[in-house]
Amino acid sequence: MPIAPDSRVDLDRFWQTIETSGRIGQGRPGGLSRLTLSDADKEMRDQFVAWCQDAGLSVEVDECGSIFARRAGSDDSLPPILIGSHLDTQINGGRFDGIAGVLAGLEVVRALNEANHVTKRPIVIVDWTNEEGARFSPPMVASGCFVGKYSVDWVHDLIGDDGTRFGDELKRIGYDGSRPCKAGEIDAYFELHIEQGPILDAEGRDVGIVTGGYPVRGMRASFEGKTAHTGPTPMDLRRNALVAGARWLTAVDDIGWDYAVHDGKATAARLTAWPNKPGILSDTAEAVCDVRHPDPITTRVMAEKMRRSVHEAAAVAGCTATIEDEWEWGGDIFDAGLIDSIRNQAIRLGVNWRDIQSQAGHDAYFLATHCPTAMIFAPCKNGITHNNEEHCEPQDFDAALNILLHAVVERADRD
Amino acid sequence: MPIAPDSRVDLDRFWQTIETSGRIGQGRPGGLSRLTLSDADKEMRDQFVAWCQDAGLSVEVDECGSIFARRAGSDDSLPPILIGSHLDTQINGGRFDGIAGVLAGLEVVRALNEANHVTKRPIVIVDWTNEEGARFSPPMVASGCFVGKYSVDWVHDLIGDDGTRFGDELKRIGYDGSRPCKAGEIDAYFELHIEQGPILDAEGRDVGIVTGGYPVRGMRASFEGKTAHTGPTPMDLRRNALVAGARWLTAVDDIGWDYAVHDGKATAARLTAWPNKPGILSDTAEAVCDVRHPDPITTRVMAEKMRRSVHEAAAVAGCTATIEDEWEWGGDIFDAGLIDSIRNQAIRLGVNWRDIQSQAGHDAYFLATHCPTAMIFAPCKNGITHNNEEHCEPQDFDAALNILLHAVVERADRD
Repeated sequence: MPIAPDSRVDLDRFWQTIETSGRIGQGRPGGLSRLTLSDADKEMRDQFVAWCQDAGLSVEVDECGSIFARRAGSDDSLPPILIGSHLDTQINGGRFDGIAGVLAGLEVVRALNEANHVTKRPIVIVDWTNEEGARFSPPMVASGCFVGKYSVDWVHDLIGDDGTRFGDELKRIGYDGSRPCKAGEIDAYFELHIEQGPILDAEGRDVGIVTGGYPVRGMRASFEGKTAHTGPTPMDLRRNALVAGARWLTAVDDIGWDYAVHDGKATAARLTAWPNKPGILSDTAEAVCDVRHPDPITTRVMAEKMRRSVHEAAAVAGCTATIEDEWEWGGDIFDAGLIDSIRNQAIRLGVNWRDIQSQAGHDAYFLATHCPTAMIFAPCKNGITHNNEEHCEPQDFDAALNILLHAVVERADRD
Repeated sequence: MPIAPDSRVDLDRFWQTIETSGRIGQGRPGGLSRLTLSDADKEMRDQFVAWCQDAGLSVEVDECGSIFARRAGSDDSLPPILIGSHLDTQINGGRFDGIAGVLAGLEVVRALNEANHVTKRPIVIVDWTNEEGARFSPPMVASGCFVGKYSVDWVHDLIGDDGTRFGDELKRIGYDGSRPCKAGEIDAYFELHIEQGPILDAEGRDVGIVTGGYPVRGMRASFEGKTAHTGPTPMDLRRNALVAGARWLTAVDDIGWDYAVHDGKATAARLTAWPNKPGILSDTAEAVCDVRHPDPITTRVMAEKMRRSVHEAAAVAGCTATIEDEWEWGGDIFDAGLIDSIRNQAIRLGVNWRDIQSQAGHDAYFLATHCPTAMIFAPCKNGITHNNEEHCEPQDFDAALNILLHAVVERADRD
């Protein structure tokens, strides 16, 4: 039978899944510390798989550990609609970032089951492994591998901060699946996510229709100097790699302030050095920074300044520098047709919506390189995220969930 | 029988002990990585104790693991002469820093044995535990405890970078001695050391008579911010503790450059942050810096600027800062009479000497608060130290060793 235009998800049922998830891998008060491929991640995955099986879905795990839970379509040979996000969190993470998107997919399927509605095209809920990159850097490797950006071997050989290997941890928790990590034909990809910024909350909006992402450019630089005594070594003979790293981070932070008035941001995210001890100058350092701005040309200018500052910082410290890795994402990457259909559902449902740009990275960015993709943002309090104080009320998800439900059904059932 | 005025140490015999030590705890090519209380440290201690016992010395180990090897005097009730330094190294250390001073003590005793000369006062060779502070911070804790600056419990409870406890590691390697770590009456303390600076080598000097140390002031500061997402969080809402730490290190390095023309130095030595990962702003950071200058008033000014820059760095990053620990050492701390006697031996032996200030910290600094103390520097190539390229030839120690021999005997035999 067809789905009624006023069908709604069950917000309480959705919230119960959020609350169950919120008990698995607890971190600081109110938050989660559910690092990818940890014991807690395994426990959450097992719970998610059980829910999916109860909902009649067939579950497969791919070579990177991503979970695909499939609801057959009435014309099951057609390319599927994917609804996905991630169940892992930052080391001091919240209870909603990523998680809400996966459980939203589950809630859509449960609502369809309740309505006895079989969509024409199949629907697949996806939990992408290691979206956060909080244990194995970089982030979003499983969705990246899925669309062909990374090889499976490369992902498996990633070494975590704790010295463990991605592939070994995957095996250890029993999620080394056999489904090839390779996207076939996909009709569309939807991702619901909390905003991770203060705009919707500040403006009292029910939902954000994501039109694209802030262009982001990041880089990892290494500095090489020479160990020496901290005492007698004259300043002009010092080659302290830690100083090179600290000067680069300072310069990048300055770039952020220079562009802050038009919402530019620069992040000094990570700095390690060796030996990094009192009494000895460090001979190596490595650092990760990024810049972002709503305007792509300005982002490029900021990135050029960031690049130049790597070498300036090294020069002052008497070190050499190498840019080991560079990346960029964002821009107008989402599908205009899909955005329109979401916007139309928001209008039809009478919610208070606005267009918005994402400022964070998401698996959706990689999926957008492969198939029509769109994102829907729910508000979160004060935009605080990647912190145990990340907070949402059930009502914050009402508009986003119901828009997702109807946009997915409209897409899945079209001729 | 009395010792002849032209008696000399056996430079080959001394060098053989240096070479044996150079095979224990090898690090990067040509260097040592013999961290305190490690297996390698135990192996070196065992070797040193065996040598001392072969030389007829009675060996005791104190509560902090320092080794005391005693040669009786003809009037054995008199306070002893101590000759000491350390056998531990930095993580990328050389084969001479500290080691030469302990083995110099052994060579002095062997030369006295060969000459059948029993000094009036006893002579004690000392290996101080953890001079370097490369595993357990701060440095020089055992000599500090010996003169009453630290308690034994405080030393035992130090936690190393590898999570181990000082007292447990002491027990593990079997050097948890029972001799109280407390200085009794000491007639004089001598320490021979490589210069760890380029002056003697550059000027072609045979030896440096150490008149005192550069005044040094250091501090450990902590910064507190708040984790948040690296993407959407606006610059003015960020409280990135890593940025606070990086800005402090940059400011301290700037202070060093401002005073470099008159040989001032500032060291950004250590920076750690948490979580220190891409994708999340760090909420805590900790850093260690120090400043030094030959002039004590200028050192004080530099330290005041370093202190102010802690709070300035924190303010820019929206963080709070706490100065957790502060220390100072150096100045004119060595004994004028002992320096004179060393200088006179240098003149008598006809070597090319100069007065020199130490720029590094040494156990002698703590001993100087308790008894007449002096240091003798041997040249080292280009002043490179705390690095596997630290290099000396046997001849570099000839003058320093013979001056030490005669200065010690003169002191030990005086009426």
